[in-house]
Amino acid sequence: MKVGVIGGSGYVGGELARLLLPHPEVELTTVTSRSNVGEFLFTVHPNLRGATQLKFTPPNISQISDNCDLVFTAMPHGKSLELVPQLMETGIKIIDMGADYRLHNPADYDKWYNWKHTHPELLDEAVYGIPELHREEIKNAKLIGCPGCMSTATILGLAPLVKAGVIEKNRIVADVKIGSSGAGQKPTIASHHPERAGGVRPYNVVTHRHVAEVEQELNLLTDEKVTVCFTPHAVNMIRGILSTIHAFLKEPQSTKDIWKYYRSMYQNEHFIRFVKFKKGPYQLPNPKITMGTNYVDIGFELDPRTRRIIAFSAIDNLMRGASGQGVQCMNIMLGFEETTGLECQGYHPM
Amino acid sequence: MKVGVIGGSGYVGGELARLLLPHPEVELTTVTSRSNVGEFLFTVHPNLRGATQLKFTPPNISQISDNCDLVFTAMPHGKSLELVPQLMETGIKIIDMGADYRLHNPADYDKWYNWKHTHPELLDEAVYGIPELHREEIKNAKLIGCPGCMSTATILGLAPLVKAGVIEKNRIVADVKIGSSGAGQKPTIASHHPERAGGVRPYNVVTHRHVAEVEQELNLLTDEKVTVCFTPHAVNMIRGILSTIHAFLKEPQSTKDIWKYYRSMYQNEHFIRFVKFKKGPYQLPNPKITMGTNYVDIGFELDPRTRRIIAFSAIDNLMRGASGQGVQCMNIMLGFEETTGLECQGYHPM
Amino acid sequence: MKVGVIGGSGYVGGELARLLLPHPEVELTTVTSRSNVGEFLFTVHPNLRGATQLKFTPPNISQISDNCDLVFTAMPHGKSLELVPQLMETGIKIIDMGADYRLHNPADYDKWYNWKHTHPELLDEAVYGIPELHREEIKNAKLIGCPGCMSTATILGLAPLVKAGVIEKNRIVADVKIGSSGAGQKPTIASHHPERAGGVRPYNVVTHRHVAEVEQELNLLTDEKVTVCFTPHAVNMIRGILSTIHAFLKEPQSTKDIWKYYRSMYQNEHFIRFVKFKKGPYQLPNPKITMGTNYVDIGFELDPRTRRIIAFSAIDNLMRGASGQGVQCMNIMLGFEETTGLECQGYHPM
Amino acid sequence: MKVGVIGGSGYVGGELARLLLPHPEVELTTVTSRSNVGEFLFTVHPNLRGATQLKFTPPNISQISDNCDLVFTAMPHGKSLELVPQLMETGIKIIDMGADYRLHNPADYDKWYNWKHTHPELLDEAVYGIPELHREEIKNAKLIGCPGCMSTATILGLAPLVKAGVIEKNRIVADVKIGSSGAGQKPTIASHHPERAGGVRPYNVVTHRHVAEVEQELNLLTDEKVTVCFTPHAVNMIRGILSTIHAFLKEPQSTKDIWKYYRSMYQNEHFIRFVKFKKGPYQLPNPKITMGTNYVDIGFELDPRTRRIIAFSAIDNLMRGASGQGVQCMNIMLGFEETTGLECQGYHPM
Repeated sequence: MKVGVIGGSGYVGGELARLLLPHPEVELTTVTSRSNVGEFLFTVHPNLRGATQLKFTPPNISQISDNCDLVFTAMPHGKSLELVPQLMETGIKIIDMGADYRLHNPADYDKWYNWKHTHPELLDEAVYGIPELHREEIKNAKLIGCPGCMSTATILGLAPLVKAGVIEKNRIVADVKIGSSGAGQKPTIASHHPERAGGVRPYNVVTHRHVAEVEQELNLLTDEKVTVCFTPHAVNMIRGILSTIHAFLKEPQSTKDIWKYYRSMYQNEHFIRFVKFKKGPYQLPNPKITMGTNYVDIGFELDPRTRRIIAFSAIDNLMRGASGQGVQCMNIMLGFEETTGLECQGYHPM
Repeated sequence: MKVGVIGGSGYVGGELARLLLPHPEVELTTVTSRSNVGEFLFTVHPNLRGATQLKFTPPNISQISDNCDLVFTAMPHGKSLELVPQLMETGIKIIDMGADYRLHNPADYDKWYNWKHTHPELLDEAVYGIPELHREEIKNAKLIGCPGCMSTATILGLAPLVKAGVIEKNRIVADVKIGSSGAGQKPTIASHHPERAGGVRPYNVVTHRHVAEVEQELNLLTDEKVTVCFTPHAVNMIRGILSTIHAFLKEPQSTKDIWKYYRSMYQNEHFIRFVKFKKGPYQLPNPKITMGTNYVDIGFELDPRTRRIIAFSAIDNLMRGASGQGVQCMNIMLGFEETTGLECQGYHPM
Repeated sequence: MKVGVIGGSGYVGGELARLLLPHPEVELTTVTSRSNVGEFLFTVHPNLRGATQLKFTPPNISQISDNCDLVFTAMPHGKSLELVPQLMETGIKIIDMGADYRLHNPADYDKWYNWKHTHPELLDEAVYGIPELHREEIKNAKLIGCPGCMSTATILGLAPLVKAGVIEKNRIVADVKIGSSGAGQKPTIASHHPERAGGVRPYNVVTHRHVAEVEQELNLLTDEKVTVCFTPHAVNMIRGILSTIHAFLKEPQSTKDIWKYYRSMYQNEHFIRFVKFKKGPYQLPNPKITMGTNYVDIGFELDPRTRRIIAFSAIDNLMRGASGQGVQCMNIMLGFEETTGLECQGYHPM
Repeated sequence: MKVGVIGGSGYVGGELARLLLPHPEVELTTVTSRSNVGEFLFTVHPNLRGATQLKFTPPNISQISDNCDLVFTAMPHGKSLELVPQLMETGIKIIDMGADYRLHNPADYDKWYNWKHTHPELLDEAVYGIPELHREEIKNAKLIGCPGCMSTATILGLAPLVKAGVIEKNRIVADVKIGSSGAGQKPTIASHHPERAGGVRPYNVVTHRHVAEVEQELNLLTDEKVTVCFTPHAVNMIRGILSTIHAFLKEPQSTKDIWKYYRSMYQNEHFIRFVKFKKGPYQLPNPKITMGTNYVDIGFELDPRTRRIIAFSAIDNLMRGASGQGVQCMNIMLGFEETTGLECQGYHPM
């Protein structure tokens, strides 16, 4: 199978190239970038030195359709809107890494993104690319809206609790900590090393767009309307997300009960690890241990005193929060073993 | 006035020495340390090179009482229990930096610390050393229980909301991010650089002892019983605490209303800064901007959609979270200008 | 005395404001910035919140001369060229923080900066602002060219050895490690947190412009022509410079001998600390311990096996490497105690 | 083939397990650890959660010999001394990750390690495990002394220059920057996060034991005796080494000449990448780009003005500086493709 990456000069595009180049079932034929046409991939992604002589090409639809059976579109939000329908017409399968095809309700784009979706007809067709929740739909999908990084961690941490109906639906807090690569490769003052290193910066604390996805997905699991209070914090790490989920139990629950809910959804999921240990510094999920991997590390603690559950969901934002999950979707769409090319076990320490 | 530091080899003791040496109203005569007797302070605290030729002495009660009008006891938790009464008998004023005299209810030591307090009679007398809440009592105190670092940030962020009675009392979440110096200067695997750097580690997520102080202080401000869900996270910074407080409003409130509650308590407080800006990367509190200072930076955002308030309280854990606040208490107790020796404005960037 | 900062929106300008606002002998009347006219200083320098209501003004020569006896010009390199002569005509004293008036030989600007100096007549008059080397000249100077940050550390570490004539003059290596604030506050890909954190990046490894200053100053101390091999590395810290100086001894020297050379130059220098201890993690200079201070920490080790001396010189690049040194020069020029406003002792840990 | 790791609870042992578990040609049967007998590997190495149910066993020689064809000994320096001969007697092949079998001259242990080697007869037999220098010997070796991390980077950076005879042999400076994992997983004050983060700490600046290896290997390439001035600095990163090599050319050389020397040694070496680019922030080697990989990134710059060459050699200290190189040696010894199990291409950013 021949695959391509449209928008290959960013961190997500580079990570896709890193994963696809050695993937045994696909051939990466095309990586486009308007700003780097003609340059070697490794000029922008220095880790690819020695791995490939591939060069960036311009995003030409007919060349792409000639050379690719499936493409990943890794564009800034809003930039895939028109490109995706054009590519779909050629019959190519698409995994869109941006936000343009994640939400099913066009009105949510007005509300959360402040723009009108120009192809609402595709929003029904697009599958939200979390395999643990939509594996069957992904198998037959022509268009995947690959989830946001913080959304992925938060949805997967919350889904079993919401589905089980054991938490108060309007008192859910997701306090998220995220590394600097989450903001992309364009330098800004907020990601300038002297400003970013050594602090904790709350941002978009009530209006982050990932809320829309999180609530969309959780509300598919329950009849009661769920709202999520979602507050991201930029912390001093490069990769990684920890979503700390504070929720209040309707009735007291035992640890065993809670595990039952998690297991009922994730028991056979290769990429979900349950993390709740009694010794050492890694008793609960820590994104550090997921770096480079496609794992979602999930754990929790009960606080009977306040009838609260604190659940933790940790991922590598560029892997499970973006490119790794995209490749996982591709594997499912193309009928490969779901873990192919995603075997990295992580590092200790890194 | 002559002052001393009992237990001067730790981070809190060193920070006290740094503040007291140039303090224009006191003379630092004595710094004790069992493990470093006879050594120069600067062997343990290299920043004091060039500042003093003072040496560590053994903790001898009569020598201390001869040479000090007031002492700071900066010992591991549980180690001040017996020392404090002995020192009080000599008539010295004491600011205890540990937890042994912070709680007024002896039963709270059984519950949160798992030991029985041996001098419950002193717990009533001891004043909890947050000047903004107990300034008058501090003026006349003989014994101060100086607050925990994460408690300080959390209490000051929550107090006006609790006092105003506008938030749900049993759905308060404090999600705390703290730097590595908070765990003290004894190397452990959790603070080992390869393990600590580059991650986010939740710890003591429901049982942290600071809860006891936080609830004690907040319950003084209201008739309804308040509980606080308190979850610390170790992040990749050296100094600093950000307490992110998620609370649910009983009734909708305007931003103006909320400022009114904060101003009514803190309007004239030199060391409390209100942080809510519309531009740049520091629109809300970030502990980075408090490093080296005694400030508490407080800000908030309302989320009308979920009827939530998110308040942020940022401090330097060794300054406002420990030694700075201790010196502030000393200034009040000894009748000096409250800001003396605490003028550092912070750095940008640092 | 009334002082101003021309170009106050950068890190050096902000640090000057931080130092000058509480300075007991001067009044900061004016801080200019083309891009932030009318905004409060604290919008750009959040650490100044609570410290001042001063606003940025446009750089108007006559207003500046009306309101200032002395100004610091903190402009990008090349931007002070014309401004300085204009200001000098009004009789104001000037401390130029940029490179435009550091070099005495106009040809050095052609060679190292690739532009022709338009006011070569001022280069003789300008004093290179390292007090330990040029204190008497600074006293009477009208124009100071304040040294580069890496130059300061390297020159002060090398000067006694060069003056003593004990090292080979053409085999001197300065291997410099510098924090990210050294590159200024403008975001670039090289200082983008995901790229900068967690690595070591050599840059300008043979052509760094600071070489010109370093050689200029060292050659004033000796008759033999000295060349310096100077190689900077960007490391994962915000503030701080360590210049590791590798030099080869003409003849074997004892540790005692070497100290004699250092003491003969720096014995009574308040801001130079000799660092060579036998215990603990800070036996040799480490920029971490100089953060926030005006100190230069200098130490060395002899390697008799290879007849090498390794000298270490550590500073805070924004303090002793820029604004702190500027204020030190100002104190000398205006007849104040040299240490006024520069008393910060540093932090442990920070 | 069955392999084991003796001393599997440290960082090097854990990294070996990570590499050997998915290695297609070997089975990891045994991982020993005195202190963790009976525990799962993943209790100590949390990245291995989900990868293996293997447990630590005690280091029993006969069990090891029953279950392993080859073992890696990853013990603290001095601890392999007696173990290695015992294991060799059973016919097992050994790759010793410590320093006990790296040096061929027993006197070097007296000189650099301050102890007497008890099995000098094995020092001749042991092969120094840098494949690019000793591939043929490694093929037939029974015992490999796997190089030190900083030695590997420094030797590979210098070898072509020494072999070509173009640099002054007694003016070679290696100024090394190393991450915190290099000091192992035992917490110490020097690696305590508050002390280590945010600084640059020179250590063992003239007496580091890696000098012995570096000089041993370089002197095999030339008739003139080479000495190396070797000075490590602990910097704020977890993994990674950059060895900056400052050397003086006997005669002027062109860039082309120097490439010729490097290519003549490394032209077909898969794991050596030449790094000298004209654009972007990674023009010269930066250890950040080698994280997780077995690459050695080598580049250089000429400074005709001072007739100096500055060569840079960057590696991941736990991969190419330890476990990765160990596995590379194993692949050669056992006749596998040399790159097997070492295909990780690195990350951008990480």
